[in-house]
Amino acid sequence: MKKKVILVIIDGLGDEYIPELRDTPLGFISTKLNTINKMAREGMCGLVNVISPGIPPSSDTAHFTIFGYDLSKEYTGRGYFEALGANIPIEEGDVALRFNLATVEKIGDLLYIRDRRAGRISGTQAEKLISDLQRAIDENDLPAELHHTLEHRGVLVIKGKEKLSRCISDVDPHETDVPVLQSEPFEEISKEDVDAALRTASIVNKITQLSFEVLDKHPINRERGEQGLPKANIILSRGAGIAIKLTPFNEKWGMNAAYVAGGPLYKGVAKAVGMKEIYVEGATGTVNTNLEGKIKGVIDAIDKGFDFVFLHIKGTDSLSHDKKPRLKAEFILKIDNVLHELLELKDIVIALTGDHSTSSRLGRHIGLPVPIVFYSDSTIRRNNLHRFNEMECAENGALGSIRGSDIMPILLDLSNRTMEYGLRPSPKKVMYAGAFGKPLRI
Amino acid sequence: MKKKVILVIIDGLGDEYIPELRDTPLGFISTKLNTINKMAREGMCGLVNVISPGIPPSSDTAHFTIFGYDLSKEYTGRGYFEALGANIPIEEGDVALRFNLATVEKIGDLLYIRDRRAGRISGTQAEKLISDLQRAIDENDLPAELHHTLEHRGVLVIKGKEKLSRCISDVDPHETDVPVLQSEPFEEISKEDVDAALRTASIVNKITQLSFEVLDKHPINRERGEQGLPKANIILSRGAGIAIKLTPFNEKWGMNAAYVAGGPLYKGVAKAVGMKEIYVEGATGTVNTNLEGKIKGVIDAIDKGFDFVFLHIKGTDSLSHDKKPRLKAEFILKIDNVLHELLELKDIVIALTGDHSTSSRLGRHIGLPVPIVFYSDSTIRRNNLHRFNEMECAENGALGSIRGSDIMPILLDLSNRTMEYGLRPSPKKVMYAGAFGKPLRI
Repeated sequence: MKKKVILVIIDGLGDEYIPELRDTPLGFISTKLNTINKMAREGMCGLVNVISPGIPPSSDTAHFTIFGYDLSKEYTGRGYFEALGANIPIEEGDVALRFNLATVEKIGDLLYIRDRRAGRISGTQAEKLISDLQRAIDENDLPAELHHTLEHRGVLVIKGKEKLSRCISDVDPHETDVPVLQSEPFEEISKEDVDAALRTASIVNKITQLSFEVLDKHPINRERGEQGLPKANIILSRGAGIAIKLTPFNEKWGMNAAYVAGGPLYKGVAKAVGMKEIYVEGATGTVNTNLEGKIKGVIDAIDKGFDFVFLHIKGTDSLSHDKKPRLKAEFILKIDNVLHELLELKDIVIALTGDHSTSSRLGRHIGLPVPIVFYSDSTIRRNNLHRFNEMECAENGALGSIRGSDIMPILLDLSNRTMEYGLRPSPKKVMYAGAFGKPLRI
Repeated sequence: MKKKVILVIIDGLGDEYIPELRDTPLGFISTKLNTINKMAREGMCGLVNVISPGIPPSSDTAHFTIFGYDLSKEYTGRGYFEALGANIPIEEGDVALRFNLATVEKIGDLLYIRDRRAGRISGTQAEKLISDLQRAIDENDLPAELHHTLEHRGVLVIKGKEKLSRCISDVDPHETDVPVLQSEPFEEISKEDVDAALRTASIVNKITQLSFEVLDKHPINRERGEQGLPKANIILSRGAGIAIKLTPFNEKWGMNAAYVAGGPLYKGVAKAVGMKEIYVEGATGTVNTNLEGKIKGVIDAIDKGFDFVFLHIKGTDSLSHDKKPRLKAEFILKIDNVLHELLELKDIVIALTGDHSTSSRLGRHIGLPVPIVFYSDSTIRRNNLHRFNEMECAENGALGSIRGSDIMPILLDLSNRTMEYGLRPSPKKVMYAGAFGKPLRI
């Protein structure tokens, strides 16, 4: 019998040694975890190098890989996921980029970045600046739409009237006190993509220039200048992503999938691969999220007949970026407190892991592996492991080291969905015998 | 802040279980290691399968892989590294092969190898034989230069006047009492390379034949025959390598690199990827090398502003080849005694490992993984590991199993040089933000 599968991703779960805790945050709190330790004791643990050792994944590339998609062949770029997650209209062939309203200072012919968030300008002011800039974009016949999301943030959609490419560099240098950059085609793309990338980069560069012309002299910015506030006088875009129809998750893995998530990016990746949303009131993607509600959402999805449910919890990563290791540990304990209901489900396989490690000392993603536990009542070996943390998973895990791309095949195996490699109708089909093929008609 | 990186390769560090030691040589001595055990306690350990499990690397392919070069796409063949390491003039397109003066016996029309080293003939005699053979090569208009190095050894450079290829088999069968072989193109090369390989093999075969004609009747060999010494009556070449400009290490990894090494091969690989030599008096690549001097050389290189220093120590491997496990263990202790100064450096990341395991029972490279330790004051997890050896790294290492090609990405991550996968300006660029891009000019 095929079991249902739940994939719990605790964002940025892994960490490094934190001197004040004399351990990692997970290691520090792991003596107090009830449910996750039970999973670890009765299940199989290991370490995941989500992309490969030493490579810190971004959240979208991590999830894309964990869902079983090939970064080198299928990755669309981040902007597409961001647009989908924010419910921004986007059509096949469009290219989407995230942007910030930022503060620049003109010195000679260069624009030096002074504040990448324009003093975290209010949504109301940002909205107005963006809509006035949109008018200028339309007047200049540039095929682009700006969408405000939150505070200083938005999404720029370049309409794919002609062939576009996601393979362009960011104008945002991700640092302050350096000049705004030109967007350029990536170095290693194929010749047929160069034209599309040149076209896309040229539109992005024109919009960047136009944004400075329009915004620097805008009344709102004149007023901000008088008040001593940083001007929001440029839009800095990054992370181009192209809207492409991906092979649906169900087609790849033979499971109807749903997701429970708060953060827009995670919703976007899940939507892009065709998972259905289970909406949960108060699921915000922050540390104040409705954890109980999210667990109920997962159980709901299982009851509705979904084969696979992806649950995403973001707070751990945010606390790492804010360099708050102790709060991160406490938030992990909070998560542990609501998970027990999942273990009461019947015929279930659960994997719990992170999408990457985040250092709550450095406040950034790092390339160290992430602990993982697979919980199931069959196809299981039991580790001699009592506390779920990075070191015990390394030392006593039944699984050893795996890659992010190994997670889906392992889940299929534990849930009785695989067939032997040599017996498959084709190397890509991993579903259990009988799940495919046309009947012979005579 | 970007940290400096030191990569210490102790050649052939890993080993197998040695009955007389009831352990591996490293395991046997590991209770006495002070500095390396401190690194292991405070750092992260694991096992490295340098190429992949079960594959015993040669020293050059191991180093090439560890430096982050792709064996399947970028490897030039060993002869090129040997030539560079021995300071032999070689130009782009030339093919270099190592050779031995050897002893053969003609039976029918075959040449049977009786001594692959011609009784370890003296350098003076070898020099004279080689220069007389060079004259014959020139008279026959063969585009080749012979260079004597040490004892019975030398390097043959075929000049690339026409297109040459490194993809040719050895005339040296690497065994005695079997016939000298013909050099032939590798089976699996592309059609356009076949012509170049046929041309190169034909020159090698002609030189092999010519060497027997010239040397067998040479007065020195007549004399050796009378003294009952084996004649040095052929040159047996092997390991063709082509001089090709490789992507410089600095371009690949964004670090200015220097090296401290004694053995010519290691110097050659480091030179081929553009590392700068830090010359150390008495660094011989033998068990009598100047270990203290080499450590001072590394510190010197850091002081001079190099970002990355590669330190190579060869003695361990030589003692394994000589089947002296106890001396190998003692030599490891000697290395440990000089390493402490490296740990006193500030803002440093150190990786210490081997390029492969060498069995000091069998006297050859074996395919077992090599222990590795990464020492740093951040992006680190602390293992519960007190002795640095093969078994503790397997059982209690924080890192699990990695590949040789993972070492550079991990070092970049630990030294604050990576950015998240999805945020990179292009998939190949791994350097930290700000290291790339042209400014936008308005």
